[in-house]
Amino acid sequence: MLPFERITIIGLGLIGSSVARAAKEHMPTVRITGHDADPGVRDRVRELGFCDDVSDSAGAAVVDADLVMLCVPVGAMAGIAAEISDDLPADAVVSDVGSSKQGLLEALLKALPGAKIIPAHPVAGTEHSGPDAGFATLFHDRWCILTPPEGADQGAIERVKAFWEQLGANVEIMDAKHHDLVLAVTSHLPHLIAYTIVGTASDLEDVTRSEVIKYSAGGFRDFTRIAASDPTMWRDVFLSNKDAVLEMLQRFSEDLTALQRAIRWDKGDELFELFSKTRAIRRRIIEEGQDDAAPDFGRSHD
Amino acid sequence: MLPFERITIIGLGLIGSSVARAAKEHMPTVRITGHDADPGVRDRVRELGFCDDVSDSAGAAVVDADLVMLCVPVGAMAGIAAEISDDLPADAVVSDVGSSKQGLLEALLKALPGAKIIPAHPVAGTEHSGPDAGFATLFHDRWCILTPPEGADQGAIERVKAFWEQLGANVEIMDAKHHDLVLAVTSHLPHLIAYTIVGTASDLEDVTRSEVIKYSAGGFRDFTRIAASDPTMWRDVFLSNKDAVLEMLQRFSEDLTALQRAIRWDKGDELFELFSKTRAIRRRIIEEGQDDAAPDFGRSHD
Repeated sequence: MLPFERITIIGLGLIGSSVARAAKEHMPTVRITGHDADPGVRDRVRELGFCDDVSDSAGAAVVDADLVMLCVPVGAMAGIAAEISDDLPADAVVSDVGSSKQGLLEALLKALPGAKIIPAHPVAGTEHSGPDAGFATLFHDRWCILTPPEGADQGAIERVKAFWEQLGANVEIMDAKHHDLVLAVTSHLPHLIAYTIVGTASDLEDVTRSEVIKYSAGGFRDFTRIAASDPTMWRDVFLSNKDAVLEMLQRFSEDLTALQRAIRWDKGDELFELFSKTRAIRRRIIEEGQDDAAPDFGRSHD
Repeated sequence: MLPFERITIIGLGLIGSSVARAAKEHMPTVRITGHDADPGVRDRVRELGFCDDVSDSAGAAVVDADLVMLCVPVGAMAGIAAEISDDLPADAVVSDVGSSKQGLLEALLKALPGAKIIPAHPVAGTEHSGPDAGFATLFHDRWCILTPPEGADQGAIERVKAFWEQLGANVEIMDAKHHDLVLAVTSHLPHLIAYTIVGTASDLEDVTRSEVIKYSAGGFRDFTRIAASDPTMWRDVFLSNKDAVLEMLQRFSEDLTALQRAIRWDKGDELFELFSKTRAIRRRIIEEGQDDAAPDFGRSHD
């Protein structure tokens, strides 16, 4: 009853290596082949042992796969798709884990004409990168969004869905364009803002960097976590989801300007009203199991 | 060798109740008197038992204190200072835990002429409020900043410093104006931005609130924690540290606009450069023990 028996994972960083580890744990008989463009990563994965085989070329990695999962930065997807196109078995399902989907789907359809393409986005991660950073429980109780193109093979959709459910995720199916809008607000905008504020704080003249670090427990340190995420991955996300990101950024800037004005003109009631409203959202995120209920995200306090 | 023997804590929320609990733990012979303007809070504190005595009036609470610590929102400090001025013993030290210091110091000096005023700001907290939310280890390895006025009694400074060190904090002494600038960037701006983005996300037409919650693990949930902080406290902080907050906000907005432009014009190199730089700050925050080294703040992943 396994959805796939021979999985190839291309790109063995945080997400790719977590998929491999989780697949090994939940589907021990599945054969996992890995490939990464970086020879150092391939060597390290051979040592870590979560792949049955590590191929030195992407083409050789896919020759008899029934699922090929692309786990490289969004900007590298089209290139890797072109690289495997000659060796891809006709009935293999091709999926990915990219954080933006609309442009990517178009690129994959063009690079792999006729292939069964079912894009996916597991909404999970940490600020760490590379094959050592992955772990088998990363997708537990997280959502994975599939964005199949119109007319996609229904059986292939079901199998990719079943695969992610076996890894512990909940699966939702969504139009690629809507996905990009939703993730622009729940993921891309937060990253952009976190990168910005950490940059702003490190460029001040009157406050030293060592003061910023010492007193970061006042709130700043929460932002530094996501501002420590992989730079290549995030550069590609912003460039590939430009329209939705710029739209959300515009709304955020308007709201920030309104708040700035409220502070300047001592409008305490306006501030209080907004600050009261935002508590409710956190409560629901915790109720729905999307964050730790313990104060401070469950950070240790001893 | 105790710096104080009879401590009065006015305001028994997250910080006041944590001070009381920590003092009980580290200085068991100290007598702790508490007062809160809210009768419901006073009842609850009597049940919780971390004060030796709970007074129904602020004046009665301070009559034989050697340290009076004001743990109310910044906007309520002047009022409470006026309330205790008649009953305050002449040689008692008055301190506080407010997040902004310059305006507050002026207000306390005016309300309590001749008193030994040593303002303090422990840079620690959680998103929870009220007397149940406090805990004894909140200040462990956190910084507490003292901002004594010019010409302050040196002995009083030393005793307040010793008090916080006994609670597990590291103490720094700083000019009130500089404090307000440093905290504007490490604490006030992050809170303002978190409140804004959570507000922006909850007011969209094309993305539902339930989608925002479901996919919050993409980054958004990190912001909801500090946007769940106490609304009264934060309203007062922004209004009382207006100049420094507006200055930092202006710099942040400029940096955000630059990033927005880089996205619009596909300047991937600019994005990559910023995103690489910000990792270093997180590393130093962890090295200096100001955040959890585990991925995801140490959130549980099982």
